Amino acid sequence: MFKKLQEKIDVLKAPVVVGLDPVLDYVPREMIEESFALKGENLEGAAEAIFRFNKAIVDAIYDICPCVKPQIAMYERYGVPGVLAYKNTVDYCHEKGLYVIGDIKRGDIGSTSMAYAQGHLGAVRIGEKDFFPFDEDFATVNPYLGIDGVKPFLEVCAKYGRGIFVLVKTSNPSSGDFQDKKIDEEPLYEVVAKKVFEWSKEYGTAIGAVAGATYPEVGKRLREILPESMFLIPGYGAQGGGAKDIAPFLDANKKGIIVNSSRGIICAYRNDKYKDCKGDVGKAARAALTDMREDLGGI
Amino acid sequence: MFKKLQEKIDVLKAPVVVGLDPVLDYVPREMIEESFALKGENLEGAAEAIFRFNKAIVDAIYDICPCVKPQIAMYERYGVPGVLAYKNTVDYCHEKGLYVIGDIKRGDIGSTSMAYAQGHLGAVRIGEKDFFPFDEDFATVNPYLGIDGVKPFLEVCAKYGRGIFVLVKTSNPSSGDFQDKKIDEEPLYEVVAKKVFEWSKEYGTAIGAVAGATYPEVGKRLREILPESMFLIPGYGAQGGGAKDIAPFLDANKKGIIVNSSRGIICAYRNDKYKDCKGDVGKAARAALTDMREDLGGI
Repeated sequence: MFKKLQEKIDVLKAPVVVGLDPVLDYVPREMIEESFALKGENLEGAAEAIFRFNKAIVDAIYDICPCVKPQIAMYERYGVPGVLAYKNTVDYCHEKGLYVIGDIKRGDIGSTSMAYAQGHLGAVRIGEKDFFPFDEDFATVNPYLGIDGVKPFLEVCAKYGRGIFVLVKTSNPSSGDFQDKKIDEEPLYEVVAKKVFEWSKEYGTAIGAVAGATYPEVGKRLREILPESMFLIPGYGAQGGGAKDIAPFLDANKKGIIVNSSRGIICAYRNDKYKDCKGDVGKAARAALTDMREDLGGI
Repeated sequence: MFKKLQEKIDVLKAPVVVGLDPVLDYVPREMIEESFALKGENLEGAAEAIFRFNKAIVDAIYDICPCVKPQIAMYERYGVPGVLAYKNTVDYCHEKGLYVIGDIKRGDIGSTSMAYAQGHLGAVRIGEKDFFPFDEDFATVNPYLGIDGVKPFLEVCAKYGRGIFVLVKTSNPSSGDFQDKKIDEEPLYEVVAKKVFEWSKEYGTAIGAVAGATYPEVGKRLREILPESMFLIPGYGAQGGGAKDIAPFLDANKKGIIVNSSRGIICAYRNDKYKDCKGDVGKAARAALTDMREDLGGI
């Protein structure tokens, strides 16, 4: 699955993923009013609004972008209707030919992780038929519970041709609270990266890693530990990382990365830089994504 | 909120929480057939079946049990209809007067954790009104991202009178992959426990901790670090822990614990020990829960 994603990145010359992390406050007033008129001023109406917002963005970028990453928290915030909007977003992105990384950061004891893995990346058997409940292509996984919590995802990935990105070093300011703690001179994130490498060998499957652009000094080291992994790199743009911070994550072939931008793309219509787009969500997203591709083209 | 939970535990003399972790295979054939007849042999039908199964258990135990803990993965496995069954379970348990711990193990960067916190423990404002999307009383939280990922939960808890349990030492066999790694002679789970203590002082709020019954040797140490926290203790019963493994977790007043059992209660109807219940899911659950209360009463 990582190979297919890399191929699409190469064809489009775009190692980018658009974070579909909608917040009601990001949605233009008109779109909100239409949604409330249709579904009510309630969770259903809010969910409709964020789905419409996503659609406007996806319609404008699907031909220049390999992949999107909806953050499921932004949908769970609106309860069951929000989760339905998440599922509709995944389906709509697939219709448009985009790969979907479910940013779900799940991870639990074995039997529970299996339930997440089947629900998000695999199938459940009901009677004589298989159903694919959420059907993302990739998911992010939290490693705090160790291999028990990761292995079910690897099994499901192998069976259905999907992939996971394990959190190694996150992009947030306090990621160091635990991830930087030294274990025999090595920070925890390196210990996790080495485990990811081991698991990848043991289970004969590629495993991606999440590592924030906000910590470029760790990029070089993580690439040494994980020479063949694809890195999912959040923290570009709004969180402060730039193209120069990304370069250390490249593999020997100058590939193997996919850089996320969320607000920088989906809220571009509010950015003075894109005022020529006259507040058009899609047009501004496309312009911002084009700029991001160019910026990253330099590395 | 922890005080209210402790009061209810005291009144019922039951430091127990029933894990509502349904799997379609656990549900009696007849209940499955009724559900499929009503909703179809699909995700909706499966979700209906697990909700009915939960109802049978809740109806039989609500007067002797303070609290339930649905594991959301078991519902996400069945997609959006499954998540709806989760929400319906939370609501039904509230109707019956039970506290609900959402076993969601979420944790992310700040703005994202805020979305989870609002969705699960708090409210979202839409137009002029507040909506409580999932409305659990407590939630479990994964600390791997540090305080950024925990703080939004604490803020929402303070505002709405809810509580969280932070994963400190999980009950699964590979929890040691990272949680046991030594940082200046201390295992990571102790470092996490100390942070939980610090955060609790800093934000002036009680924070619970998750620590597995399968590792009783760590119970005493964790209780020293967190003298006032409530411990949510999984791993009793099916995972191998017994009453003697629980004792070290007690606080100075012989309180401050809530012990989870899932399969041991919800699948009791298949256990030879409860064959007098003649396969009645609810009756057997009540019998098993009564036994568990007695077993724990000894400590």
